[in-house]
Amino acid sequence: MPQLRKDPVTHEWVVIATGRGKRPSDFSSANNEDVTLRPQHIEKCPFCHGNESQTPPEVLAYRDPGTRPDTAGWWVRVVSNKFPALAIEGELDREGVGMYDYMNGVGAHEVIIETTDHNRCIATVGRKQATEVFWAARQRIIDLSNDKRFKYVLLFRNHGKIAGASLEHPHSQLIALPMVPKDISEEMRGVERFYEYHDRCIYCDMIRQERHFGKRVIEENDQFIAFEPFAPKFPFETWVLPKEHRASLTEEDPAAVSKFAEIVQNVLRRIGKCLNYPPYNYTLHTAPVNLERDPHPYFHYHLEIMPRLTIAAGFEMGTGVYINVTSPEDAAEHLRAVDISDMDSPVESTIITHA
Amino acid sequence: MPQLRKDPVTHEWVVIATGRGKRPSDFSSANNEDVTLRPQHIEKCPFCHGNESQTPPEVLAYRDPGTRPDTAGWWVRVVSNKFPALAIEGELDREGVGMYDYMNGVGAHEVIIETTDHNRCIATVGRKQATEVFWAARQRIIDLSNDKRFKYVLLFRNHGKIAGASLEHPHSQLIALPMVPKDISEEMRGVERFYEYHDRCIYCDMIRQERHFGKRVIEENDQFIAFEPFAPKFPFETWVLPKEHRASLTEEDPAAVSKFAEIVQNVLRRIGKCLNYPPYNYTLHTAPVNLERDPHPYFHYHLEIMPRLTIAAGFEMGTGVYINVTSPEDAAEHLRAVDISDMDSPVESTIITHA
Repeated sequence: MPQLRKDPVTHEWVVIATGRGKRPSDFSSANNEDVTLRPQHIEKCPFCHGNESQTPPEVLAYRDPGTRPDTAGWWVRVVSNKFPALAIEGELDREGVGMYDYMNGVGAHEVIIETTDHNRCIATVGRKQATEVFWAARQRIIDLSNDKRFKYVLLFRNHGKIAGASLEHPHSQLIALPMVPKDISEEMRGVERFYEYHDRCIYCDMIRQERHFGKRVIEENDQFIAFEPFAPKFPFETWVLPKEHRASLTEEDPAAVSKFAEIVQNVLRRIGKCLNYPPYNYTLHTAPVNLERDPHPYFHYHLEIMPRLTIAAGFEMGTGVYINVTSPEDAAEHLRAVDISDMDSPVESTIITHA
Repeated sequence: MPQLRKDPVTHEWVVIATGRGKRPSDFSSANNEDVTLRPQHIEKCPFCHGNESQTPPEVLAYRDPGTRPDTAGWWVRVVSNKFPALAIEGELDREGVGMYDYMNGVGAHEVIIETTDHNRCIATVGRKQATEVFWAARQRIIDLSNDKRFKYVLLFRNHGKIAGASLEHPHSQLIALPMVPKDISEEMRGVERFYEYHDRCIYCDMIRQERHFGKRVIEENDQFIAFEPFAPKFPFETWVLPKEHRASLTEEDPAAVSKFAEIVQNVLRRIGKCLNYPPYNYTLHTAPVNLERDPHPYFHYHLEIMPRLTIAAGFEMGTGVYINVTSPEDAAEHLRAVDISDMDSPVESTIITHA
């Protein structure tokens, strides 16, 4: 019998309908791609090494001492998006026309180029490189948060065409928004509601319950845990959370960011091996910024990794309720069983050895 | 400069970012398909004429007098979904485990087979046939609403593989849910809020403002209007609403349903011709059922048609905010300009002449 499960934070219902009995191999499709089979360098790729003049100027780069901005010699590079969804210059200029409200699309839209190599990705680069990618994201979130016009900074990654990646070269993105977006407002409402009643963080409780139950946990290290949420919208949806209460990635030190990179890489490697390298998105849910009330006590940051194995269609679009054909308990069992030890210590890129 | 627009009902922000200057032809893709180029009959298709034994038993059919259920002789046929997302039998059995809540997935999941012909669709069948498809939907919504366990009945259509259609043969679907789903709750909250303040229906106001402004209107007949909403999530998203206040399609008589079918067919034909027959979803937003409080005064039913031209990716999944690359004013101008007069009176199928 299908089951309806309620997300304890947002109170959204999800349908867990496992009747079609999907195994991981049933999800394999033409949209999957093992990026290690690509060429290492593509002449026309604006994000490949040596093509720095094809992007907008860099806003941050980790590069060899003595190399000039927007030239070769970097290993992580952040640039403005060439086709930004929001414009960095300008005032908000709120206005109403009859019953309608609008404002200028002020914000920031940046691209984090994660490696010089076209044939690697955040899952397969070395640990040091992955740590520096997240450290760069952390640095940009802090910097963008200093702009008082912004209320939220989102880090996200689109991997594969079907997951919305318009350029192949491994990259993630940052968007700063002038308002707290809908899904985060709802999450904030959920965590505040719980905090007011229990005087505890709901995610801290969730971690305790998941560790006790065990069947949805994928893995943990001394600082982070990865599990399938109780009411996942998507098959093999996986969350990564710090085990100690933290509201934002910006609160973490380099050692913690390295541990975060480790568990994220491990989960992505498990998903890749288990599901034949599917497209996916991940989004970092972190506390809003520049609020009047400090969200630290009740918000708990986490990364949501969502493989794109099924299609949201009319039902999801008309209700906001998702049908998930794989239970999180089954997904966790499959992901735990994956042996990723052969992917453990990939060679660091030649560039990073200069750092 | 990009613009942020707020949906007046749900208060959701949408980013209108037209910087890349997309024209309708830029959206054409391998996912598009002109269904008239398919064969009329496919031996293995469970929804084609003569293959009635391959589906679950019919719950409703419009068929020639003297023909038996689950045999040939029908022109519109409704059957249970072979792989239902929800189960019709059983009690709700709500339960909590620690901080988590779940209940049995009780509901109904039906398929409306819209025509016997594999190579036609709701847009290209004759007007009489389209009217009977919506009349069948209306009849099933009324019947399912009589089951007091259900709080909402959704009619939706997935057209094309990328829009979630797993079977090619033209069909739409009905799902009855034991709770009011999230998006409809939010819509209800929005219309109630407006009604309490203004003592008017927000959609009635919207229709007045759209007719006065004119630039987002696609077409109207004496009973219905089609326009691009002020804050559309998707390029070429189009809404169809009754001009008089109605809470549900179930309140309409046959003449009104015929007018509804006319405008829906016209809009789908315009979208097809303008955008080279793209995949799309439509969902009918209608009043919840079996509520303690009668939603009639403030809910106004409408059909939302959403072509699948772009991909919702990490940004949308992490924020709930959509980036739309086509302004609704531009989309409306393109759709109004389409000449659909050559599609006006398609021949009715041979079957329906027996009716």
